[in-house]
Amino acid sequence: MKSRPTIFGDRGMTLEQEINESNIYYRNHQLAVIYKKPTPIQIVKVDYPKRSRAVIKEAYFRQASTTDYNGVYQGHYIDFEAKETRHTTSFPLSNFHDHQIKHLAQCLKQQGICFVLIKFVTLGRYFILPASDLLLFWQQAQNGGQKSMPLTFISHKSIEIQAGFNPILPYLSACKQLIAQQGGQS
Amino acid sequence: MKSRPTIFGDRGMTLEQEINESNIYYRNHQLAVIYKKPTPIQIVKVDYPKRSRAVIKEAYFRQASTTDYNGVYQGHYIDFEAKETRHTTSFPLSNFHDHQIKHLAQCLKQQGICFVLIKFVTLGRYFILPASDLLLFWQQAQNGGQKSMPLTFISHKSIEIQAGFNPILPYLSACKQLIAQQGGQS
Repeated sequence: MKSRPTIFGDRGMTLEQEINESNIYYRNHQLAVIYKKPTPIQIVKVDYPKRSRAVIKEAYFRQASTTDYNGVYQGHYIDFEAKETRHTTSFPLSNFHDHQIKHLAQCLKQQGICFVLIKFVTLGRYFILPASDLLLFWQQAQNGGQKSMPLTFISHKSIEIQAGFNPILPYLSACKQLIAQQGGQS
Repeated sequence: MKSRPTIFGDRGMTLEQEINESNIYYRNHQLAVIYKKPTPIQIVKVDYPKRSRAVIKEAYFRQASTTDYNGVYQGHYIDFEAKETRHTTSFPLSNFHDHQIKHLAQCLKQQGICFVLIKFVTLGRYFILPASDLLLFWQQAQNGGQKSMPLTFISHKSIEIQAGFNPILPYLSACKQLIAQQGGQS
């Protein structure tokens, strides 16, 4: 609950840093409880030196089986993946792993609020693309369709958010819209 | 979606294994999407050998800032911590960390379905204790009350579940009850 220095968006921060700072803001203001999951590690060897804490001496990065971020907002389950690209006209699907797509599909079936947060670094633009639109595009690509989402597709299907401060990335406003849309459909 | 051998509860499995197997069952049957979060690790040194994958050579275990399990069930956010004990008449609060309690309180404020799954190993009994009851007991302990939850308290406040198979721990039925209770209150 400490006060934190004001940090403006996109001043050399990675997308992960921007989201983490936004999540801290949302937690401190009791607006949502959303965290990045730790990177999964396969631990092979651990030393337990006397009188000091355990040291991992051999370990490997494992492929995550889910997306990076999840949490709760007013009873709703929020789940998303974040991706940044230096492309300026499209976003290649090769940035996604099968397991991320599968996880988003599973969460969507459970009525989660699921999306990808895509940052076009060069353009300084941020898009909240609903998972349902990503899944449709992905399915079409599997059947011989385009392998890269054009910016025009993304901007048409997404809720665009502006980087600012407090929070740096106000993506919760997009969640509210997704919840309203999902409620309207059911 | 592979078929897995039938595994019966409590045959030398740890509580974590029992929950993980149950979560696989729930995911495979599209009943819920709930995962254990990876253990957070602070990585200090990584080697990148030629022609082979990165090796973490020095790393340390970090304190988790949340509970171990979360996910989604029919639109509801599920969040819980799992604890096992060999005690037979009470469960010491010292098994919980401040950050776990704080996290449960934050998620509860966001209308999450929050609880602790307590396994009394010696008794072979499993309890789903609502986070709200744990938080009240915790608060009273801070103000000089008991530092250990009597089994009578736990069994009175909890939904008890029976270990079986498919899934080993059918804790989702308890979630349904908690959702019904929470819906009735609001």
